[in-house]
Amino acid sequence: MEVLSENRCFGGIQGVYKHQSTATGTDMTFAVFLPAEAADGPVPVLWFLSGLTCTHDNAMTKAGAQAWAAEQGIAIVFPDTSPRGDGVPNDDAFDLGQGAGFYIDATEAPWSDHFKMWTYTAEELPAVIGENFAVDLTRQSITGHSMGGHGALTMAMALPGRFRSVSAFAPICNPTQSDWGRKQFTAYWGDEDNWGLHDATLLMKKSGFDGPMLIDTGTNDQFWDLLGTEAFAAAMTAKRQEGLLRLQKGYDHSYFFISTFMEDHVNFHAEALWA
Amino acid sequence: MEVLSENRCFGGIQGVYKHQSTATGTDMTFAVFLPAEAADGPVPVLWFLSGLTCTHDNAMTKAGAQAWAAEQGIAIVFPDTSPRGDGVPNDDAFDLGQGAGFYIDATEAPWSDHFKMWTYTAEELPAVIGENFAVDLTRQSITGHSMGGHGALTMAMALPGRFRSVSAFAPICNPTQSDWGRKQFTAYWGDEDNWGLHDATLLMKKSGFDGPMLIDTGTNDQFWDLLGTEAFAAAMTAKRQEGLLRLQKGYDHSYFFISTFMEDHVNFHAEALWA
Repeated sequence: MEVLSENRCFGGIQGVYKHQSTATGTDMTFAVFLPAEAADGPVPVLWFLSGLTCTHDNAMTKAGAQAWAAEQGIAIVFPDTSPRGDGVPNDDAFDLGQGAGFYIDATEAPWSDHFKMWTYTAEELPAVIGENFAVDLTRQSITGHSMGGHGALTMAMALPGRFRSVSAFAPICNPTQSDWGRKQFTAYWGDEDNWGLHDATLLMKKSGFDGPMLIDTGTNDQFWDLLGTEAFAAAMTAKRQEGLLRLQKGYDHSYFFISTFMEDHVNFHAEALWA
Repeated sequence: MEVLSENRCFGGIQGVYKHQSTATGTDMTFAVFLPAEAADGPVPVLWFLSGLTCTHDNAMTKAGAQAWAAEQGIAIVFPDTSPRGDGVPNDDAFDLGQGAGFYIDATEAPWSDHFKMWTYTAEELPAVIGENFAVDLTRQSITGHSMGGHGALTMAMALPGRFRSVSAFAPICNPTQSDWGRKQFTAYWGDEDNWGLHDATLLMKKSGFDGPMLIDTGTNDQFWDLLGTEAFAAAMTAKRQEGLLRLQKGYDHSYFFISTFMEDHVNFHAEALWA
C-alpha cells in the first residue's frame, strides 16, 4: 500500500492511499479519515460509497464529514467507484464503465475482467483497511450517495451482521426498474435472469435490515424519477423496517444537500457504533 | 446579474452568479451563501477571499463554511481571484495572471487593462451584493486564505471602519519581502517605488486594525517561508494589536486545514457582527 497524501484534519489524518487490487486487477485508490483517537487504539469505521462519476475525492473534499467523525471518534473510508486506467474498458456515457461500477461483479465482456466492485468493496478493501489502519472491524456502519446509496443499502441487507447501521443520501433504491440500473445491469450481467437481488427494494421485501436505517432525499432532486424512492418507501413500510425516510424540502442531488445532513448521518451511525 | 446556479444548503441558498464588471472590463463570477434568516431581512456578511489558482468555487465547496454561517445567520461572499477569459492576459506560472490577482489594481501593461481586483473587490462587488441580496452592509467582516489572507488583512487595515473583524488562514502577510508578492507587484506595478502599502506587515506597523483579528497558520505549512508570519507577528506585537495568532501544530496549507478551523473563524466574526 502506497501513501499518496496525508493531511492533518480536525485533529486526525485525512489520507489517500493506493494498492494493487486482486479483485479488479488494477491499482485502486481510496481515502481514509482517522480521528485523533486512532492513535490510542482501534476506532469504529463508517464506509461512504460515492455516486456516478465520483472517485474517492469528491466526498472526502466536499461532504464535510470529517468535522463530525472527529467529534464522534470514528474513521471514514472513501473507496473509488470503479477500476480505472488505460487497460480498463470504458464507455462514452457518464453512467457506464469507469466511475460507474455500481458495486456489483460484472460477468459480461468487456467488463468482467475488471469490474468486480462488489468483491472489491465488500471483501478485499475491508481486509486492507483492517490490516493497515487502527480500525475495529467489529464496529462498522455504511452510507453512500446516489449509486453509492444503492451500494450501501444492498451491502447492508445482503451481508447481515456486518453493519450496525445503514444510511443513504438520495439513493438509487430500485435499480431493476430504473434507467440507472437496467442499463448497467444489462451491460455488466446480460440477461435479466442473471441480476439476482442487487436492488434495495427487492432486498427490503425479502429480508430488510436488522438495525436502524436513515434515508434523506431532497424533494427537488433533479434525478427523482431515477431513484425509485416510492417503491422503496412502500417496501420499507410493508416490512415495518426500523428507520427514518426523510424527504427534505427544496434540496437537490448535490453535495450541498449531502453536507447539510452529514452531521445527522454521522451522529446516527455513531450512536449504533458506540452502543 | 445572471444566476448560474442556486442550491439549497443548510436551510439557506448557495448561489453562483455572473455579472459584467466595470472595474475589470470582463464578466466576473462570484458565489453567495444566504442563510435562511435572509428571507426575513438583511443579514450580516462575511467576505472570504481565496488563494492562488482558486476561483469562487474552491472555498464554496471545500471550506465547510456554510454549516457555521447558517448556525450564526450570516451571509458569505466568495469572489473570484482575478479577471478571466480569452481577452485577459495570463502567464504560464500558476502565481501570476489569471487566478493570481493579488487584490490590487495593476498599472503596468499588459495587466493594467483588466487586473483591477482592489477596485473590484473593495468597491464594485460590495455595491452589487448590496443591491441584489438581503445583506446589511453596516455589518461586514472579512477573511481569506493565503493570497486571500493578504487581501483580507490589507483591506481591513486600509479601509478603516469598513469591517468589524478580520481573520485569515495561512495569510501571505509580508508580500513586499516574499517571492509571493515581489514577483507579482513588479509585474503589476513595476518599480518598487509604486507599491504603496499593500502589505499587511507594513499596514500593521502604520495603523493596525481597529477591532479583533484572528490568524491561523499551520506549523507544517509547505509554503511557510513565503508567508512572512514572523515579520507580521513582530509587527502585531509591537503594535499591541488586539487579536490571536495561532500556530496550529501539524497542519499544512490545504483546505483540510481551513475546514478544521472554519467554525472558529465564523464564530469569531459572528461575535463581532452581531455585537
